[in-house]
Order: sequence, then structure tokens, then C-alpha cells
Amino acid sequence: MIVVMKAGATKAQVKHVVDLVREYGLKEHLIFGTDRTVVACIGDKRMVDKGAIENAPMVEKVMSILAPYKMASLEVKRDKTVIEIGPERFPLGANKVGVIAGPCAVENRDQLLRTAEAVKAAGCIGLRGGAYKPRTSPYSFQGLGERGLKILAEARDATGLAVVTEVIGLEQIDAVVEYADVLQIGARNMQHYPLLEAVGKTNKPVMLKRGMSARLDEFLLAGEYIINGGNKQVILCERGIRTFEEYVRNTLCLSAVAELNDKTHLPVVIDPSHGTGHAHLVPSMSRAAVAARLIDGTRWA
Amino acid sequence: MIVVMKAGATKAQVKHVVDLVREYGLKEHLIFGTDRTVVACIGDKRMVDKGAIENAPMVEKVMSILAPYKMASLEVKRDKTVIEIGPERFPLGANKVGVIAGPCAVENRDQLLRTAEAVKAAGCIGLRGGAYKPRTSPYSFQGLGERGLKILAEARDATGLAVVTEVIGLEQIDAVVEYADVLQIGARNMQHYPLLEAVGKTNKPVMLKRGMSARLDEFLLAGEYIINGGNKQVILCERGIRTFEEYVRNTLCLSAVAELNDKTHLPVVIDPSHGTGHAHLVPSMSRAAVAARLIDGTRWA
Amino acid sequence: MIVVMKAGATKAQVKHVVDLVREYGLKEHLIFGTDRTVVACIGDKRMVDKGAIENAPMVEKVMSILAPYKMASLEVKRDKTVIEIGPERFPLGANKVGVIAGPCAVENRDQLLRTAEAVKAAGCIGLRGGAYKPRTSPYSFQGLGERGLKILAEARDATGLAVVTEVIGLEQIDAVVEYADVLQIGARNMQHYPLLEAVGKTNKPVMLKRGMSARLDEFLLAGEYIINGGNKQVILCERGIRTFEEYVRNTLCLSAVAELNDKTHLPVVIDPSHGTGHAHLVPSMSRAAVAARLIDGTRWA
Amino acid sequence: MIVVMKAGATKAQVKHVVDLVREYGLKEHLIFGTDRTVVACIGDKRMVDKGAIENAPMVEKVMSILAPYKMASLEVKRDKTVIEIGPERFPLGANKVGVIAGPCAVENRDQLLRTAEAVKAAGCIGLRGGAYKPRTSPYSFQGLGERGLKILAEARDATGLAVVTEVIGLEQIDAVVEYADVLQIGARNMQHYPLLEAVGKTNKPVMLKRGMSARLDEFLLAGEYIINGGNKQVILCERGIRTFEEYVRNTLCLSAVAELNDKTHLPVVIDPSHGTGHAHLVPSMSRAAVAARLIDGTRWA
Repeated sequence: MIVVMKAGATKAQVKHVVDLVREYGLKEHLIFGTDRTVVACIGDKRMVDKGAIENAPMVEKVMSILAPYKMASLEVKRDKTVIEIGPERFPLGANKVGVIAGPCAVENRDQLLRTAEAVKAAGCIGLRGGAYKPRTSPYSFQGLGERGLKILAEARDATGLAVVTEVIGLEQIDAVVEYADVLQIGARNMQHYPLLEAVGKTNKPVMLKRGMSARLDEFLLAGEYIINGGNKQVILCERGIRTFEEYVRNTLCLSAVAELNDKTHLPVVIDPSHGTGHAHLVPSMSRAAVAARLIDGTRWA
Repeated sequence: MIVVMKAGATKAQVKHVVDLVREYGLKEHLIFGTDRTVVACIGDKRMVDKGAIENAPMVEKVMSILAPYKMASLEVKRDKTVIEIGPERFPLGANKVGVIAGPCAVENRDQLLRTAEAVKAAGCIGLRGGAYKPRTSPYSFQGLGERGLKILAEARDATGLAVVTEVIGLEQIDAVVEYADVLQIGARNMQHYPLLEAVGKTNKPVMLKRGMSARLDEFLLAGEYIINGGNKQVILCERGIRTFEEYVRNTLCLSAVAELNDKTHLPVVIDPSHGTGHAHLVPSMSRAAVAARLIDGTRWA
Repeated sequence: MIVVMKAGATKAQVKHVVDLVREYGLKEHLIFGTDRTVVACIGDKRMVDKGAIENAPMVEKVMSILAPYKMASLEVKRDKTVIEIGPERFPLGANKVGVIAGPCAVENRDQLLRTAEAVKAAGCIGLRGGAYKPRTSPYSFQGLGERGLKILAEARDATGLAVVTEVIGLEQIDAVVEYADVLQIGARNMQHYPLLEAVGKTNKPVMLKRGMSARLDEFLLAGEYIINGGNKQVILCERGIRTFEEYVRNTLCLSAVAELNDKTHLPVVIDPSHGTGHAHLVPSMSRAAVAARLIDGTRWA
Repeated sequence: MIVVMKAGATKAQVKHVVDLVREYGLKEHLIFGTDRTVVACIGDKRMVDKGAIENAPMVEKVMSILAPYKMASLEVKRDKTVIEIGPERFPLGANKVGVIAGPCAVENRDQLLRTAEAVKAAGCIGLRGGAYKPRTSPYSFQGLGERGLKILAEARDATGLAVVTEVIGLEQIDAVVEYADVLQIGARNMQHYPLLEAVGKTNKPVMLKRGMSARLDEFLLAGEYIINGGNKQVILCERGIRTFEEYVRNTLCLSAVAELNDKTHLPVVIDPSHGTGHAHLVPSMSRAAVAARLIDGTRWA
């Protein structure tokens, strides 16, 4: 951590910052530049309240050196995590391309079973569909609940597809764990910490979607919450961020796929449907995401 | 709702859209332009699945005419809602300026009681402080929980200030309702619907913070969730959005204050601390927010 | 164009809008909905001053039906434009993958000639390098000017690579036309109209970079300025937009590549260097951009 | 400047960075942390090519300590710059509130003279109106040119208002200097450096509008270009940034007004019309901007 003092900070003001830094168990290192005094801090700053230092008198800014996450980091765990999903144990995070498809919501048994057959026939590995729906409007259809979960499980039994479905509230976790193969945390709940902690106590793979304005560090820290709860099976899902662009619902960040690959051992998937909002962009973005992850010119098996 | 067909859409494709529109109980109105056919839809579209129409063949785009919220709208309820908070029943939404202040987190009894005295002495009307903290990192201090709530209640008894504190999980609601005067829903939870529904069943005023990438319609719809649950005491809090700007933590949108004033009957407050991230910007943004709301040149009482 | 009146607009206010609409040579079409009156306008609205209507009394909003560009549109010109660049006439816009590489600025003859050899040896088709540099700071190196152009031309003669270089000011155009194969308009100048008009009067291909906060319509309209000047050889370059993301300098929008492909006949290229700001992301984003453009599963020749 | 090496950087890689740093005339200061080696650099980094260091092997990131601008900084010039505009020499930058108003474009003599009378009668100090218009579409009205300038000058003679008008191309500068009181640089041209340099050689006040995605540092550096050219009369104009918000055309950043006040000696004004895109938001944003600048509780004279 680097603390930059404002021009004209007095010795006493610098000393105050040094005292704060030591209180947090860090070692300081003073640098007197031409225009500014800088306090470089050595040690693990993960427990430090950055705000307390930032608000000390005559502090201009505080800059971080280390990433704030740990267990999600490739620096800490050098081998990539592979997570097997569904009855056919398809390995996410290995060099294989798998597609998960399905309707937004489970509407009824017939719709879902027919869709599942088509999804299977198309060569997909997973079936998604919402039993509990997070709806922007209270007037929209909110999902079939447990009945939807049972239909999803029936579709899995019929096809061998892995069932991926969203869990929104703590009280739904038991039911979703019982029927689904992968618990999905939606973008709107990426920072709903009680939910992250709760799925961290289950033994099911969790697909964590990036919040629509989440920075990569925040995304990884949300994953860290789940790992910290005891569940290491975290799959990260890039689903687009909110920008000023108008021709898409969200701006899908394929550079995030490449960057996450560099930073974390966790598997990364994309959601090209929510990530663009348009069916006609799904094939091109899917191909592009695969290409972004191609390593050393070798095509995935 | 206006459905724009792509150039070259056939009669059958237009008819398919018309059929969908009628299925949702709307009446269509066809317009044949020079380059495009447009299907204007008349009726209440709040229950319509816009996506289903958007994905119909040869549909270019679907545009909304009406705002998606209803009970939060000034069109539906013409008189401004006034919400009285705390033991001294300070009216939010009336032409009075009140300040709510306090620490990020309740750390201990002594810290909070001394702060509350200072807050009172400065002329404020409310005391805020977190007993439950939503922390980006699992390694940060998570709050004192119920013990923190009791300290807050003690501070209220000593000063008469209204206690405002965040509720993060459903299981905390009973305790927060018991000790606090205003339940705060944090920006990260603005779209955590189980929480919105649950506070909608309490009888305490709710301060709903705008999500950091929420559009105004989504913000009002989140408020609508609470009202829809039965609780009409919703206070909207503008707290800045996430943009590319770097000198502030968030970009405080004071035009949102003016615009909400025009659109909704609910009281609007701002959070200049999170809305900028810098103590030195709090006084100017507070004054600016008051000025933005000045009506007809009359200063608030 | 669709004009939505506010709730409660009087007949006279609607008539005023209808009069304005007719003044611009459009035909109106009135729709009386349950809550709103809507004026749909038929005809070519490209010459209409949308603002004048938007500011008429009791107008709530004005929505466009048609894209504002014309000559850049795939609706107007159905066959894709192919632009041949450099002494070897490499066709941009055809199903071939070509790479243009080179240093940010031409620093000296030796640096550039050695780089050009390496670029050629790596199989690239073009050489880029700035002779005139648009620098955020007045204190940075501003480029070698005409001397840099001569070095670039020498490198082309030695290698057969197409020379791509930026033109910033009108007074540089003659020199750049003389020495370069492709004139580049930088992102900061995407809406500097005198420059767009001026390069529109040359007979050299123009590589137009997307402004860092330009919407696709604005990008295509900037291209339309050049075409409108008489020069049809416009190459569009996606180079990332400014968002809240921090791990990249810009957020490269690969969905824009796919979408532009759908909307315009002009060739589209990407700038993965400025589009991410990191060398380690260039290979993955380059592969991804190629994959985004793959048509019908066929790899480009 | 702080250079952070990646974990595992070798001594030779650190030495390479140290050599680069010394080449730019800076002094290094090595800090060996628990996980990272950091190279702190002392000296004036304004001439350093940050990119060259950023791309050195095993460099993780480069962070700046000092702001990149100098002559615009309040650290360098401690007294606020006051710029007098128009025949009545109204002082911008002093504690007075002045309003500049007028139409988007000068359409004809009658329209402008009548508007100018109204602007004067309303107590304004300046008249704005475009003679040269930067139009997103080549099909829109491009302005009356020099004839428009003459009409503006006539309006000034009739009213005593200061004339503010945009200059888009270098070839317009002489005419605009002859007829106008303040040269406006539009948001789209904030980084068109030839124009900044050219107006830097005139002796007229320049109103520089913030680019729609410009960071504050870039805005101040654009001002620095003008000052660097010799013209110290630079007025900064906040006019809103492009964000995901939809109810406004741009998001007006009033915190930027307060922050600029803290960082620079140059006068700051706002453009509430372009900054919101809606007439009904202009009064509230104007009041708010004045309130944001109120100093020490004293109202401006």
C-alpha cells in the first residue's frame, strides 16, 4: 500500500499516518520526493481499513499494490481448478468447450422437457432455466419455485444434462441443492453476502455471475466469499457490464475472460445471451470467447 | 409499446407480432412508414414479456412508451408523501432540510455515544451507523450485529436522533425493526428482491439506496417492490453511480434528485459521503442537493 | 420518429406538435393510448431538428425509428465494400485475416526500418507508426512530422507493407496523402468534422477509429461524413470504449464487430493494443475478433 | 511514479526497470515487500514515457504520484485567475454569478436580435449562439458561418452582452477572434490539439468544454495546451459526461465543479442545457452549481 501525502504536509501529519500504518501491523518506508512525501507500507494489508488512512489530515490518496483476494488467486494456487458438473461429470476449467442452454424461466413441464431434448440433441452439456426468477418489476412472472425445480430434475434424468438454476434467497438453498447440479448466483446478487456465505456452506458447484458494474477485483472477492465459506467449486461467469452502449443490453467483456484466465485458477464461462441481449449476437460472441481462451495456438479438445 | 419491424418484414411476420401483442391483451395499431412497418400497442404493457416480442422474427426493436412503475409515480399519487422519522418525528419529504450523520460502522459503545452527541450538537436529525456491514472483502470487519443495534438505540434515547441502520439479511429484520427508526437497504441490495419484499411487510420507514448502476426506472421499481409489499414509507437515496471518473469514488447525480422530484411522490435524500468518497466534497454536494430541490425560488424552511 | 406526449397534454398541444412535424415535411399518424397520446411521424426524418420537437410543450420524449446514417448502411448498399491497401493490394473487407503492426511513434530511421523488417517477417500486411502524434500532454514527444513520413515510405519500399499513419490537422493532409497508404483518423478526432470532410476529398483509404465514448450510430455517421465528401474507402476501427473497468485501458467491444458487420458494408478492423492497453491481452483479443467475424462456421481463407 | 513488479521478478528484471527509470532522469528507490518489489521513482516524471516502463518484462503496473498538469494547477499559481469578458468586463472566477444564454445556432438576424434582447432583459451577462455548428450528422444544418458572426456582433453592440461562440476549424479562428468575445472549444474538440494550440496563440478568452468522456486530468491537460501556447485566459466548462443513465442526455458532474475549484486557479462554469438535455432540469442544476461553489458559507456577491 502506498500513501501519498499532499504537498505541504507537515512532519507531524506524516508521523500520524506512520502511526496508523503501524497500528495495522504494517512496516512503513518513507520516500521524500521533489513535490510529495510518500509512505510505502510493507506487510499484509488485507485487514487494513484503507478509509481510515485516506481520511487522515493531508493524505492525498492511498494506492494498493496487492490484489485484495487471495484464495481465488493464481499466485496462491498455481494449478487450474477443474469442476465436474452433472451426471456425466463434464469438466469445466479443462480444455473442453461445453455449452449450457435453456429458457429464461421454467414455464411448464412440457415446455421444459421439449427444450431439454433439443438442448441435448444440439450437443450441449447443461440445461439452464429459472425456477426462482429475480424480476426487475414486481408485476412480472416470478417463477414456479419448487415445482420448477422438480421439472428441471426430471429433464436431467431424461437427458443426462447438468441442471443449472438460480438461487435468490437463503430459504431456497436446500431445495435447489436437492434438485440442481449447479447453483447460480445472479448478477444482481453478486454482492449479497449472506447468500455467498450460505452457498459457500453447500457442496454443490456455484456459478457466480459478474455484477453489472463489478470490477474484476470485486468479482474475485465475491468468489472468495464462497471459497472462504468452505466451497471451492466456484465458476465465474462474465455476462457483460453496463455502459453507455445502446445496441446491446450489456457490453460483454471478452478481455475479462483472458484476464481472469491470467489471474485466477477458477473456471470462467460467459453468458452471451444476457451479455448482448440479442439472439443474433450469440453465435459470434460464443466463438469469440472460445478463441480468447485458446492457449498457445492449440484448439481445445 | 412500439414494435419496429426490420426492413423487408413480410406480412406474415408482421401478423405474427400482432398475434403476440393480442395474446398479451393489447390492441395493435399498424403504421406503414417509408422504410419500416411499426406496430404501436395500446393497453397496459406492464405484464407483457418484452423479450418474447423482441425475439420474434424480423423485429428490429421494441420501445416503451410508459414508465414501468405505478405506485411510486406522481401520476398515480399527486400529493407528495411525507415520512416522519425518529422520536422527534422529523418530516422527510416536506420543505425542511435535515442531516443524518454518523460513522460507517458501530465499533463500540463509547465511540458511538460520543459521535451521537456531536451529531446532535451539530443540529442533525438522524444518526446512521452500521451494525451489520456489507463488506466487499470477507476479511474486513463485519459489524457488531445485535450488540451494535442496542448501542444505536441507547444513543437515540440519549439524543432524540432517528436511528438509521442497514439491514442485509432477512434474518436481521426483526432485530433491526426492534431497535432502529429507519431500515436502510444498501446499494448492493437494491435488487435483492426477497429483502425488498420482507421490508415491505414491516411498518418502519425504509431508506432505499440506488444501486451503483441502476437506471432511474429500476430504482423506482425497487421502491415499488416495497410499496407492493404493503409498506408505503419508502425514502429514495441517491448515492452516486459508477462511471469512468477517477477523482471520486462514485459520480453523484444531482440531476436525479430533480428528476425524481418530477416523477415520484416519494421523498428523496442524498448520500454525499459515498456519493463522492471524499470528506472535502461533502459540504458542497450537500448545499448543491438542497439547491437542486429549491422550489419556485423559495428556500426551504 | 415517434413523439410521446405527456399525460394530460391538451388537444392544442398535440396540434402544435403535429404542425411542427408537418413543417419538416413529415406525415403524422395519431395514436390515442390509455395513458398517452403518441404522434408517429412518417417520412425521412434525417433533416428534422429533433430538439425543436423535444422542447415543445408537454412532449415527454422523441424516439427514432430509423438509423440516422444512410450511405454507410447495409440497407442501402447490399454488397460488402472491399478496400485494397498498400503496394500488394491486400483486400480489407474480404474473407482474409491481415495484421497491421508497428510502433506507437516513428522515433528514428533505424528503429522503424528494423521494426518493419520484423513486422514483415511475422507475416503482417501493414505497418503503422505515428509521424504526427496526438498527445494528451503538451509536454510529451509530438512526433517527427514529415521526416517521419519519409521514413515510413522508405520502410514500405523495403518491405511492401501498407503504411498506415495518423493525420491530425488539415495542414498535414497533403503530406500524409503523398507518403502513406492509409490515413488514420484517431479516436479523439472521430468527431472533428473539418478533418472528416477534408479526408473525404482525398482518394486514399481512411481508417476511422471509434471515439472512446461514441455510440455505434455516431461512429457510422462519422464514416458517413467521409463518404459524403466523396471518399468511399472508409475502414472502421473498433478500439475500445471508456468504462469503469480498471484492468484494461479501454473496454474492447467485440460485439460491435459483429453488429457493425450486420449494419454496414464497410470493412471493420480492431485495435487490440489501445483496446486493452496490455501486450498480454493482444493475442487473445485478436483471435477473438477473427472468431467473432467467422461466417457460417467457415474459417476465413 | 511507482512501478510495481510482478511476483517472482528476478534481480535482472528489476535492474532493467531501474535502468529505464534512470534514463528518464529519475532517481529510483527500491522497496522489497512481502509479495512484491516496488520501484519508487523520484523526480519530474512529466516527460517520461510511462508505456515504455509498463511494457518492460515482469512489470505489473505503473502508478502516478503527481498530477500531469502544471500551469493549470493551484499548487503552481495560488491566486485564482479572474477573466473579464465582454464590453462590460464581467469577471468570471470572482465571487459573482453570471448567466450566459442563447440559441443553439444563429438562424437569422431577427431570431438572434430578439433573443439577445430577452437574454439581456433577464439579467444575463453573455450571449451564446453557434455560427459554425459541429453536427453529428452531415445532413444537419451546419450554421451561417461568418454571416452568423456578424449578427452576433450586432447583438453585442445592441445589448452589451459578451458574445460566446464556438470555433471548430483553424481557418475560422481569425473571423471568430474578430467578432466574438469568448472562443468556445466544443466537447468533441477538447482533444483536437491543433485547435488548442491555435487558440492558445490568440488573445481572447477561451471557454473549453469538457469532453464527454474526459477525466479531470485530461480536461486540465487540454487547458494546459492553451496556456502553454501563451493564452492564460482559459475558462473550464463542465457539460456532463456520458454514462448509462437514460433520463438525461449527459450526466452533469457537479462534484467536478467543487473538485476543480480545489485543483485549479482557472474559472469554472457549467452548461446545464447540454449537461442534462432537458429544459426542465436547467433551473435546478444552475442553482445547484452555484451552491456547490459557495465558499465558507458566504453567498456570492
